[in-house]
Amino acid sequence: MPILPPDTGFADLGFACVDTARAARTGDPEVVFAQGKRPHEVVAILRRLAEAHPDRAVLATRCQEEAVLACADSLGDRATIDRVAGTVVVGPLPAPVGRVAVVAAGTSDLDVARECLTTVRVHGAGADLVSDVGIAGLHRLLARLDDIRAADVVVAVAGMEGALPSVLGGLVATPLIALPTSVGYGLSMDGLTALLAMLNSCSPGATVVNVDNGYGAGVAAARIARTVGALRAAAQIAPPAHG
Amino acid sequence: MPILPPDTGFADLGFACVDTARAARTGDPEVVFAQGKRPHEVVAILRRLAEAHPDRAVLATRCQEEAVLACADSLGDRATIDRVAGTVVVGPLPAPVGRVAVVAAGTSDLDVARECLTTVRVHGAGADLVSDVGIAGLHRLLARLDDIRAADVVVAVAGMEGALPSVLGGLVATPLIALPTSVGYGLSMDGLTALLAMLNSCSPGATVVNVDNGYGAGVAAARIARTVGALRAAAQIAPPAHG
Amino acid sequence: MPILPPDTGFADLGFACVDTARAARTGDPEVVFAQGKRPHEVVAILRRLAEAHPDRAVLATRCQEEAVLACADSLGDRATIDRVAGTVVVGPLPAPVGRVAVVAAGTSDLDVARECLTTVRVHGAGADLVSDVGIAGLHRLLARLDDIRAADVVVAVAGMEGALPSVLGGLVATPLIALPTSVGYGLSMDGLTALLAMLNSCSPGATVVNVDNGYGAGVAAARIARTVGALRAAAQIAPPAHG
Amino acid sequence: MPILPPDTGFADLGFACVDTARAARTGDPEVVFAQGKRPHEVVAILRRLAEAHPDRAVLATRCQEEAVLACADSLGDRATIDRVAGTVVVGPLPAPVGRVAVVAAGTSDLDVARECLTTVRVHGAGADLVSDVGIAGLHRLLARLDDIRAADVVVAVAGMEGALPSVLGGLVATPLIALPTSVGYGLSMDGLTALLAMLNSCSPGATVVNVDNGYGAGVAAARIARTVGALRAAAQIAPPAHG
Amino acid sequence: MPILPPDTGFADLGFACVDTARAARTGDPEVVFAQGKRPHEVVAILRRLAEAHPDRAVLATRCQEEAVLACADSLGDRATIDRVAGTVVVGPLPAPVGRVAVVAAGTSDLDVARECLTTVRVHGAGADLVSDVGIAGLHRLLARLDDIRAADVVVAVAGMEGALPSVLGGLVATPLIALPTSVGYGLSMDGLTALLAMLNSCSPGATVVNVDNGYGAGVAAARIARTVGALRAAAQIAPPAHG
Amino acid sequence: MPILPPDTGFADLGFACVDTARAARTGDPEVVFAQGKRPHEVVAILRRLAEAHPDRAVLATRCQEEAVLACADSLGDRATIDRVAGTVVVGPLPAPVGRVAVVAAGTSDLDVARECLTTVRVHGAGADLVSDVGIAGLHRLLARLDDIRAADVVVAVAGMEGALPSVLGGLVATPLIALPTSVGYGLSMDGLTALLAMLNSCSPGATVVNVDNGYGAGVAAARIARTVGALRAAAQIAPPAHG
Amino acid sequence: MPILPPDTGFADLGFACVDTARAARTGDPEVVFAQGKRPHEVVAILRRLAEAHPDRAVLATRCQEEAVLACADSLGDRATIDRVAGTVVVGPLPAPVGRVAVVAAGTSDLDVARECLTTVRVHGAGADLVSDVGIAGLHRLLARLDDIRAADVVVAVAGMEGALPSVLGGLVATPLIALPTSVGYGLSMDGLTALLAMLNSCSPGATVVNVDNGYGAGVAAARIARTVGALRAAAQIAPPAHG
Amino acid sequence: MPILPPDTGFADLGFACVDTARAARTGDPEVVFAQGKRPHEVVAILRRLAEAHPDRAVLATRCQEEAVLACADSLGDRATIDRVAGTVVVGPLPAPVGRVAVVAAGTSDLDVARECLTTVRVHGAGADLVSDVGIAGLHRLLARLDDIRAADVVVAVAGMEGALPSVLGGLVATPLIALPTSVGYGLSMDGLTALLAMLNSCSPGATVVNVDNGYGAGVAAARIARTVGALRAAAQIAPPAHG
Repeated sequence: MPILPPDTGFADLGFACVDTARAARTGDPEVVFAQGKRPHEVVAILRRLAEAHPDRAVLATRCQEEAVLACADSLGDRATIDRVAGTVVVGPLPAPVGRVAVVAAGTSDLDVARECLTTVRVHGAGADLVSDVGIAGLHRLLARLDDIRAADVVVAVAGMEGALPSVLGGLVATPLIALPTSVGYGLSMDGLTALLAMLNSCSPGATVVNVDNGYGAGVAAARIARTVGALRAAAQIAPPAHG
Repeated sequence: MPILPPDTGFADLGFACVDTARAARTGDPEVVFAQGKRPHEVVAILRRLAEAHPDRAVLATRCQEEAVLACADSLGDRATIDRVAGTVVVGPLPAPVGRVAVVAAGTSDLDVARECLTTVRVHGAGADLVSDVGIAGLHRLLARLDDIRAADVVVAVAGMEGALPSVLGGLVATPLIALPTSVGYGLSMDGLTALLAMLNSCSPGATVVNVDNGYGAGVAAARIARTVGALRAAAQIAPPAHG
Repeated sequence: MPILPPDTGFADLGFACVDTARAARTGDPEVVFAQGKRPHEVVAILRRLAEAHPDRAVLATRCQEEAVLACADSLGDRATIDRVAGTVVVGPLPAPVGRVAVVAAGTSDLDVARECLTTVRVHGAGADLVSDVGIAGLHRLLARLDDIRAADVVVAVAGMEGALPSVLGGLVATPLIALPTSVGYGLSMDGLTALLAMLNSCSPGATVVNVDNGYGAGVAAARIARTVGALRAAAQIAPPAHG
Repeated sequence: MPILPPDTGFADLGFACVDTARAARTGDPEVVFAQGKRPHEVVAILRRLAEAHPDRAVLATRCQEEAVLACADSLGDRATIDRVAGTVVVGPLPAPVGRVAVVAAGTSDLDVARECLTTVRVHGAGADLVSDVGIAGLHRLLARLDDIRAADVVVAVAGMEGALPSVLGGLVATPLIALPTSVGYGLSMDGLTALLAMLNSCSPGATVVNVDNGYGAGVAAARIARTVGALRAAAQIAPPAHG
Repeated sequence: MPILPPDTGFADLGFACVDTARAARTGDPEVVFAQGKRPHEVVAILRRLAEAHPDRAVLATRCQEEAVLACADSLGDRATIDRVAGTVVVGPLPAPVGRVAVVAAGTSDLDVARECLTTVRVHGAGADLVSDVGIAGLHRLLARLDDIRAADVVVAVAGMEGALPSVLGGLVATPLIALPTSVGYGLSMDGLTALLAMLNSCSPGATVVNVDNGYGAGVAAARIARTVGALRAAAQIAPPAHG
Repeated sequence: MPILPPDTGFADLGFACVDTARAARTGDPEVVFAQGKRPHEVVAILRRLAEAHPDRAVLATRCQEEAVLACADSLGDRATIDRVAGTVVVGPLPAPVGRVAVVAAGTSDLDVARECLTTVRVHGAGADLVSDVGIAGLHRLLARLDDIRAADVVVAVAGMEGALPSVLGGLVATPLIALPTSVGYGLSMDGLTALLAMLNSCSPGATVVNVDNGYGAGVAAARIARTVGALRAAAQIAPPAHG
Repeated sequence: MPILPPDTGFADLGFACVDTARAARTGDPEVVFAQGKRPHEVVAILRRLAEAHPDRAVLATRCQEEAVLACADSLGDRATIDRVAGTVVVGPLPAPVGRVAVVAAGTSDLDVARECLTTVRVHGAGADLVSDVGIAGLHRLLARLDDIRAADVVVAVAGMEGALPSVLGGLVATPLIALPTSVGYGLSMDGLTALLAMLNSCSPGATVVNVDNGYGAGVAAARIARTVGALRAAAQIAPPAHG
Repeated sequence: MPILPPDTGFADLGFACVDTARAARTGDPEVVFAQGKRPHEVVAILRRLAEAHPDRAVLATRCQEEAVLACADSLGDRATIDRVAGTVVVGPLPAPVGRVAVVAAGTSDLDVARECLTTVRVHGAGADLVSDVGIAGLHRLLARLDDIRAADVVVAVAGMEGALPSVLGGLVATPLIALPTSVGYGLSMDGLTALLAMLNSCSPGATVVNVDNGYGAGVAAARIARTVGALRAAAQIAPPAHG
């Protein structure tokens, strides 16, 4: 039974073309988007990327149960796995430069928030999680404001009505990235409600990423925090006190 | 040039069928929805309704500039006109029973908020406006909380991301009606964003009306407040102190 | 195989942060939204909430088959389970104050209607179900009108074209909450049709909650009914006769 | 200043191609859809159609103010004009065969209802209007049921939540055509709400036409009524008693 | 483990309320919508309906594999089953009065077309299927035109771009019901494309039912065909010759 | 009153940057999209483009009444204006190579069809219009089939249900471009219906452009026809006989 | 247990009507759309088509795992199977006339791109794949431009933001077909984003097919390439040099 | 004719409540959103804000023709007006700290791009415009890359298919804000296409603001650039060389 000839021109691993030169071009290694890939494929790509970048972490996102198990079996202690977030990290994290606060409205937003946290760390900035501070109980948010204000960048994660970035935008002057999640029920429209709310925020200054895109928010936040952190160090200015 | 014969069977005023018996059936007179009617028609219907209800106020909503002017010319001192809200009231307001707090996020929401205020008053409850307390400046909202908690029903009016009801829902235990407005720009989708946000609120207990429907929110709020106020009076319980 | 360190700060039960102080803040205990949680998690959270509130009922909603079985196994006679509604109640219901009529259009709406009934009861008001009174057979609805009018609040539950609240709104003067369901086929759009119909009702005075949100309608209805019922008792007025 | 040569091949009147042979092919003359045409064009096409069909009525729909005035000026007594519906009829109506009841929910639906009425009559059936029988006041609808049941076809016209056909479908066994209108405010979505509600009706047996398409409903209703009426006459059966 | 008490008031069969009196009220027995019901429930309701209507057929629609098998096991020869359509009929079909032509564009539309065919027959009219006459091969449609024109009502069934009713509308003068199906791929939007195309048809006179609603189209078609067929018999007019 | 300094860097004409080198890069001159530009701006850009391309035609599309008049006044005989299409052409058309048939369903589609015709001619191919051949009267389309089959490319223009390309796709083997228009009423959704229908056509082989985009269809068609026509000439093959 | 009689009139294989005469009518054999068909049905239809067309390839698309296995088992060496694309080809490919370049943005777009490649080849043109040239790394695309420009038609395949056709449209003058895929995450809307982006491209000249419709793009591309290739051969012009 | 009493509580200027204390709270003065305000209102609010902030610029956005004229008349040389952008600035701009590159795809995007430029400058950062570098002509964009890379933040402005940020994201490592505009025609959906494309970009690291929201993008960009610029100065690092 013949198969179509491999005329595609990119056959490193047979099933995928691993771009081992991306760090040289853009400063950061390629990241594996595991959704839709088979477990052994995720393991093989991670291995190849880790060989190409022995001195810094490489990342796979959106790993579901089987992929997580395959990574645990095959990569052992070399892999740092977060089951909630679906992330697998292989190799040592870079020393953090600058800090990002990832502020999540509810416990249901944690998978997305943790994908963001790990992405920030793999991309070279520090990251802290401030969780369960949704706007239905403002006292919780107000109690954590000093921690949040101490960051160089804030990522506000929320589903349902997506109002957290609007409230935060009136309380902090830090660069603010709004990360909508698909958490909700009834006619929540898979995160469209939160996305639209964030795009229409009455607090100016926030920017938005796609629904559940913790990876995208993490890359954007790390880019800003790294620059600010490096300049602060060069200027010998201490970072804001940490709550 | 012949016109089709009047075979419609409802020709009180030629152009409309005024239901002068509605108060007897439902407790409240018919209300004139002026949008799409010509100025002289609005005046004529209001006149006929006022004749049928000499002892209590009748209401027209969604009156645009020409209709407002026609009412001012024709009805004179008998009409109480609110240009911002587009409402015209003819006749004395009922004595207020119970109180509704109408809480508006921004000055752009005032036209809808005022339509709601007037509707509440015409339907027999008291109504106070708490304005310009959007969530981008929480201190303004917190400063007015005592006033808001003193009401029997709260109507929360907001456009853009529509987050005010969610924040209020975490702060008050009063029945809460969320009133989305079409205020916004960019892809605000004519109020759909605020409506969806309110339907997906993480604060349980709020109910929602249609976009810009200050009239509907007012009728619903007045029904609850009248009942509560009348029972409180019967029980000889003082209302909550007013801020 | 290392896991990310527990830097989240909310780890009561490892997988969730149970808010045992909510009743002190808002008057009602936290409710468990079971959808997306694993069966043993639902059981554990219910247990912890029941310990914190020994003298009144705590509630889990959206429990699917496995969660229901786990609750039946682990909680035994202490749990009152409604398989149709997906609710689990642990502990004694409060004495009912005020009454809510939950009026459902068809038998397919029963799961949502029953979630609403149980929520009302857990939140301290009485609740009666009037079922199978859809508008395709008006005689059934008219035959039950006295029962419906005897309530302090009416919740109208309907899917498909969602017309029940409009018809009821023309027949009763009671506060009316419209609860759309996702029941339908063809292009019913997961309840959007019923939701839009209810928001556009020609009968003023109804307010609306999100699709299938029996819980939200129940909380809103209970808040109004409790207030009215308590005042009626204080005023020593008998409730309307019950059909 | 040269204009592109008339290479289009259809230049009867310069600006339009009048199909004067349609009645021969389909049994009914072409109808002028005036929206987007200039007043003198509407007049000219009507004239040409009337010449081609001297013994029966021809119709223009969607005539706005200027087109109506131009027809009145130019066609004088030969034209029967309905300003509310935007219709102009030239020539004698056919003798009616069979009867259609056009049942409209509110006075705002009258323009669409009247377009339907006139279309039915021009297409050879009789038509009666039953108006202002929206479901917010069921007694009005029940009072007119005998009239409605006496028709061969019922057209139910409604905007807002579009529930009239569902209620009627439970009360009559006659063929039923649902005609949604764009009447509404807030997020009524230009008639989409009414259209979806009618498509999702819980009363089987109704069929639906496009929003505000009084013309389409009229043609469909007339086709059925003409057939039924002609057969009834042939069978020498009296039509149902007329209310 | 206690269950909520059966306070619902409609418990004929425990899980459903069978309306055995509907035929007396509306002329046709209740129809079982099997989707979402368990197989033994479908069997039990069908049995009860068949007992109540010993002399005419009763119908279940949307029966999936398990329900079909349960009906075959339990009802044996009394049941006529159409696996493609998902219909089960118990009892003798009425003698057909009038005829409906169900015209389907493609073989993928057959399940919906057959649901329609069986519904027509159970509701007392005759029904013929004309299949695989989609507009991509007009010669097939033209070859069957005489058959189609011989019917009293035409139902045009099509998915994808939904153009069949528009083409048929230009070829026949018979009452025409357009039945969109969810057949399609790419961005077909679950039948929305076909539905919108049919609502916007340039051929006047067609009416539309919801996506995949063969049942609704069948009821509507049977109502018209029965009336026309009965009158034709009374007038002693032969039906059009059958191709 | 100071204006912001001209720091934009593209100020050829003050209000626009005319790209006079595009023909050198892509083979065709820049085209002026007049919508949203002021009349004198359209004239000025056309003048400048015509100076840069003295030996071949330059084009402006979407010219509204004022822009057309300004062009007529300023450019005189040098401009060929099509008021229906909103196009202005300055300079001699290229000699046509290859032929495009633009087939329009109705007279309302003529503005878009003519924009397409002129675009084809300005881009160097021949173009013929076949108009008023909508599918509601198939005989008209069948009568013109020989003309249509004689073209190298067919553009099928239709609004409303957009079925013309599906019918044509079953009748011709020529490359086929489907051009949806926003013609329609009721819930036609500004051409979305026609666009979706064309994307979901059951006749394979058609490709689609955006709603009302006669310009885009014209460029695509001309590219194909020019290539085919030039090769046919080189091969000394006669084009298909012209109807 | 009786089954409805086979009154459908098209029963070649019992479950499907194979059109073995299509190649005679349209130049190409019928293609099997396997999605929704059972594995043995796909095999049987392919067999019958192959018998009718012994001298050229026949094609099945959208074959899922089970269908692929069934074809491998039953058809053996006669079938050429592409698991990634879900295509099965039986019989010898026609000699290629003209060439199509299928340019895919990412590895996730390969299944759709390969369906297109195989469709082109089965329909008689040559096809080359240029893959992994998404716009996030322009150097990859620029490096392959000569290959792309050497084709007679270009098909640009992309998901996510769908920008590849716009970039290509500015770089090549070849006829360009844009093929959007459903690849994406977050609010990608199942390919709607890519489809809309391609319809709104600022590079004129591209046409678009439905989401994931590699088959449709392939048929359209092959029709153009065959014509161009045949004429080039007739004119004895060498094709452009192949990169 | 009585007007409702001024019970709103915020009547500084009668028609609006000017928040003159915002700069003290958030670092930047309130900005006037002129859309929907009357010309004299815009002038009065600007005056009041300028009085409160004599030493730095205050801003009005979305000023239409009449408001621009009123500002020119009343504020004279004190106002810097940009008619294209609809902005009015009163008072001296702050000394710029850090630099923002605003990169616009086409001349039609200039109004939005200029609103962004002015907002950046009023909020204390430097801003340069790089215009007319849309992706249909990549050479223009590549020629300006050094200028773009020299900025601390890049804002990419594009309508239609919104692909510019994706292309830029593969070329620069700077923080990148994507600003979609409503520029487009056909089914561009008022900027939704560009917004969705930007949210689904295959180039990680970009964040997005609402359609046409040059103001929001400007505030976000200025916040980042000010921080980076100030730290760079403190560290005595020269900014990147300016192209």
